[in-house]
Amino acid sequence: MAPQYAPSMRSRLAPLLLFLQMGFILVYFFYVDIERHSDRKKIFIYYYSEFQDVHVMVVLGCGFLATFLVRYSFSGAGFTLLVAAMAVQWAVILNGVESLYHRGKIWINMRSLLVAELCTASSLIAIGAVLGKTNPVHLLLIALVEVSGFVLNGWILQTFLQVRFLNTIMLLHIFGAFFGLTLTRVYRRAFEQQHEKEKIDRKTGLFSLMGTLFLWMFWPSLNSVLLGLDHPDFERSLSAIYSTYLALAVSAVTAAGFSVLTSPQGKLNLFHIQRCTLAGGVAIGVAMPAVHLPWVAMIIGFAAALTSTLGSRYIKPLMLFTFDCHDTCGVLSVHGLPGVMGWMVHLLLQISESKDLTMAARFAAFHICTLLITVSLSMILGVITGFLLKWNILRPPQDKNCFDDQAFWEFPHLAVKK
Amino acid sequence: MAPQYAPSMRSRLAPLLLFLQMGFILVYFFYVDIERHSDRKKIFIYYYSEFQDVHVMVVLGCGFLATFLVRYSFSGAGFTLLVAAMAVQWAVILNGVESLYHRGKIWINMRSLLVAELCTASSLIAIGAVLGKTNPVHLLLIALVEVSGFVLNGWILQTFLQVRFLNTIMLLHIFGAFFGLTLTRVYRRAFEQQHEKEKIDRKTGLFSLMGTLFLWMFWPSLNSVLLGLDHPDFERSLSAIYSTYLALAVSAVTAAGFSVLTSPQGKLNLFHIQRCTLAGGVAIGVAMPAVHLPWVAMIIGFAAALTSTLGSRYIKPLMLFTFDCHDTCGVLSVHGLPGVMGWMVHLLLQISESKDLTMAARFAAFHICTLLITVSLSMILGVITGFLLKWNILRPPQDKNCFDDQAFWEFPHLAVKK
Amino acid sequence: MAPQYAPSMRSRLAPLLLFLQMGFILVYFFYVDIERHSDRKKIFIYYYSEFQDVHVMVVLGCGFLATFLVRYSFSGAGFTLLVAAMAVQWAVILNGVESLYHRGKIWINMRSLLVAELCTASSLIAIGAVLGKTNPVHLLLIALVEVSGFVLNGWILQTFLQVRFLNTIMLLHIFGAFFGLTLTRVYRRAFEQQHEKEKIDRKTGLFSLMGTLFLWMFWPSLNSVLLGLDHPDFERSLSAIYSTYLALAVSAVTAAGFSVLTSPQGKLNLFHIQRCTLAGGVAIGVAMPAVHLPWVAMIIGFAAALTSTLGSRYIKPLMLFTFDCHDTCGVLSVHGLPGVMGWMVHLLLQISESKDLTMAARFAAFHICTLLITVSLSMILGVITGFLLKWNILRPPQDKNCFDDQAFWEFPHLAVKK
Repeated sequence: MAPQYAPSMRSRLAPLLLFLQMGFILVYFFYVDIERHSDRKKIFIYYYSEFQDVHVMVVLGCGFLATFLVRYSFSGAGFTLLVAAMAVQWAVILNGVESLYHRGKIWINMRSLLVAELCTASSLIAIGAVLGKTNPVHLLLIALVEVSGFVLNGWILQTFLQVRFLNTIMLLHIFGAFFGLTLTRVYRRAFEQQHEKEKIDRKTGLFSLMGTLFLWMFWPSLNSVLLGLDHPDFERSLSAIYSTYLALAVSAVTAAGFSVLTSPQGKLNLFHIQRCTLAGGVAIGVAMPAVHLPWVAMIIGFAAALTSTLGSRYIKPLMLFTFDCHDTCGVLSVHGLPGVMGWMVHLLLQISESKDLTMAARFAAFHICTLLITVSLSMILGVITGFLLKWNILRPPQDKNCFDDQAFWEFPHLAVKK
Repeated sequence: MAPQYAPSMRSRLAPLLLFLQMGFILVYFFYVDIERHSDRKKIFIYYYSEFQDVHVMVVLGCGFLATFLVRYSFSGAGFTLLVAAMAVQWAVILNGVESLYHRGKIWINMRSLLVAELCTASSLIAIGAVLGKTNPVHLLLIALVEVSGFVLNGWILQTFLQVRFLNTIMLLHIFGAFFGLTLTRVYRRAFEQQHEKEKIDRKTGLFSLMGTLFLWMFWPSLNSVLLGLDHPDFERSLSAIYSTYLALAVSAVTAAGFSVLTSPQGKLNLFHIQRCTLAGGVAIGVAMPAVHLPWVAMIIGFAAALTSTLGSRYIKPLMLFTFDCHDTCGVLSVHGLPGVMGWMVHLLLQISESKDLTMAARFAAFHICTLLITVSLSMILGVITGFLLKWNILRPPQDKNCFDDQAFWEFPHLAVKK
Repeated sequence: MAPQYAPSMRSRLAPLLLFLQMGFILVYFFYVDIERHSDRKKIFIYYYSEFQDVHVMVVLGCGFLATFLVRYSFSGAGFTLLVAAMAVQWAVILNGVESLYHRGKIWINMRSLLVAELCTASSLIAIGAVLGKTNPVHLLLIALVEVSGFVLNGWILQTFLQVRFLNTIMLLHIFGAFFGLTLTRVYRRAFEQQHEKEKIDRKTGLFSLMGTLFLWMFWPSLNSVLLGLDHPDFERSLSAIYSTYLALAVSAVTAAGFSVLTSPQGKLNLFHIQRCTLAGGVAIGVAMPAVHLPWVAMIIGFAAALTSTLGSRYIKPLMLFTFDCHDTCGVLSVHGLPGVMGWMVHLLLQISESKDLTMAARFAAFHICTLLITVSLSMILGVITGFLLKWNILRPPQDKNCFDDQAFWEFPHLAVKK
């Protein structure tokens, strides 16, 4: 309730939102149209419910996963909605540039909206690393840059390395995580000590767990829906559903097991249950093209949860104290490491399957280049964005205003005593 | 914990619920049957997931949106469930009267349940205006009268003005809002000053935001599912999905922008994020038949969020102080004004598209009559219901019992200190 | 914050989780594969959204329904996730044993995952009876035994009584409830007096209500999806959707009515709204094969809610004081009694429909045997499991640690006050 240390956002946020929005409407006026008379209408309707699952994951799942901070829960969910609403419009434009060049129009259909949601998911992962330390103007800029970078990365990989589109899109976890990680390192030194407001309470923990459950339940849709839209025989789509389902089940059990095993008190850690249970979905999403057997999916789920739990327990503090890199939502251990692990499994499986050594070497070379380009591009853009955010004109919040809704939200009717 | 000022509901609510329910079962026994051997079974299964989306919006979305009051959150969600369960059964009967007359039976199928859900949604909007100031007996009566009025309104428009069914059903926002508004004005004078219990807290704010997100995410289903059931080529249904999706994205961004712009402190207002973000869905639902281009959908989303935010900021207090009209959930600015705006956009678009002046004039005349009839009927019924609710036998809650769960819920196991 | 009275789970839970998980992976390695080239792929994709509904009911619905205890809410939702992830893998194996014997492989497809989810639901019902009085090692053992017993029960009924698979699976409510009830009786004497931590608060009550609403909204999918997968003409599936929908609507109204009627203060009871509203779904699920008319569905909903509300109000305390049987979630009145009622309605309807007395008698004999076998097997297994859980090596929590998250969860960042 102290307006003095919460500088008005009127002169920054409102113009940014409204000018960007009017700009988008102008672009849509000239270049974008709804696809009609498509021969895929039936497929689009079949997959609408899976599209909705992904929509729920992005808006509600990511949004409520970010409510865990006790004094920052409105911002967590509210800014996610805001960023998603903006980033989706931007991603539709960027993904349509090629179609605009060749066919004169950007077409909106179920698939283009879905791809836009996935790009948005990538930017929300990046935002997880700086959650609570930024203002909404920052978050919008991050989202716009990250989505642009991610689309550019996909275009580079498709054009120069002939990577298939479906494989580039699943790099969203890796791209988002490394972008966020360098961003948070450059943008802001870690706090001297645990920030007094970076706390959870029982109720925000439950809201966050609700976000987790929606992500966990609907992840099979995330990994299968694009396959389904592009391969209308349903077989690959169903296979992706079953594999992801199994990987997530194993992932939840494993994360709990290692959480207890590595705990000094021998107890479950809420953070691990909220996030590391999802690692299986990340890893199998990246490795999907090479996964054909249920036990492989389960091994991936096991390894991903192991990586993620150990990462959260040991690498997260290491990053904080050694590299001065404060990662609010632990995106490195939840998206980065499991993503890279999935990439490695894909490599190993593909090599072990190929009968021809030259083919295997060729695949390995391309596959390694894919990762290198993705990681490099994401880190370079993360650094640039980090410096951009330090810019004083954007008014980065002071330390004492971090992790606090008060800086951004009016609370006129708030009951005084909780 | 003060039973003395919470009169028992046993002698009013229980008989009303049980007699009405037994009456409904009797009516269903004589007149209602499940439709079998329909040639639309395949379409019904295709659209079942969209039907479920609408069901989620009505029960969970509206229910949790109404949990925002800190001491009234159980009532918000619980009474919504109760009213929805009752109103749906009543709406199935009313909507089937014509079929009963012509075919001797009221048929239950996916479409009739869906239409019943939409009528229920209309009554839940009306209830938003009097939330917290009524008892559940009131709410049930409001719902029954409102649904009857809304079905009657649709029948009048279809019979005398040849308005298509799809267009009448989307007037649910306008009908519900104006019904609720006159109802709350007649039923109860505004409180002398801000009621001490009309408060939110951080957690109920989050529950309410969750309701918002479900409404926001699933609104494309609300606007498209009836189109899909009635036009099995999927094209109009997909187009409605894309348009609503874009309108809502723009609406969320715009509501946030204007919320900050009009705030004295330059901050976001939680109420605007919870409600005005949805205005785009309302407006485009009403204007849908004339919307064919994505940028038109976006303009509608922009204008609706603008109307709604300004309405919440400036017209809501005006209504309160000048017209003595206390509108708990702000249904005028969230449903009423955006609905009327959508109606106007429909008019303008249709006129600008028609090549023939006579046709345009004819359309305008019919379209204006549609609005006038809807608003008049809803307001007249609102006034009548308002007087009915004042009736002492229904025991309207005293001022000090408003916005309080204690009056209606047993709390035996409630932890004493929060 | 008192680690001294919370014995470490490291030496019990972690090895159990990890060894079981590795064991499952081994079994899947040798025996399980994903079904490909099925001619039911199209049906599987059609019904994927209903499968997801059931998944949401099991993981989120049951999980959040169990968050109602103020100090045990993380455990309620978190352990449900853990148990579900484990039980599903186990149920896939058990249900596939017959296929393994005949075809040499256990096949994973939408149907096998769905059946596994339903078996899991059965074990979660049983867990409801001992919620808060057990540790996670207990819960896992209960789930594994219960799922095995339930699958065995189905096999016995199908093999010896020629009961159809669809009918055996819907006994999940009865099996789970009676298993849980005997289990809780044998495992642990009721507390001398109301346990001081067995409390709800307003916010956990709302989380729990959210779980209720998801169960209530998606129950039509639960009762229809298996019918749909097995009878691809959609007719029975749609009929099950409509019937369940109506039964639940009536159930919600009736539960509220009798809750008020039997309340000493004439108020609604939160527990009844959270649980007894669902009784209609239970009863109609069991009676489904004989329900063809909407009013029959409604009568079933009415009777189920009546049974359930009266059971919660009068039989639950009776069980506690007379039989020393403490049933945390009231599974007897929510699943047991409505399930048996559904079974009776099925019997009556089938007899009244059969034209031939011999047929009717024959059906009655088989039907009564079905119930007797199910109840006996569940109770015997419940007793055995109850004795197993008392085993000291599993470290049953002391009374003072019951209903408390502190025993199982690390709270490092928990905000101190609140």
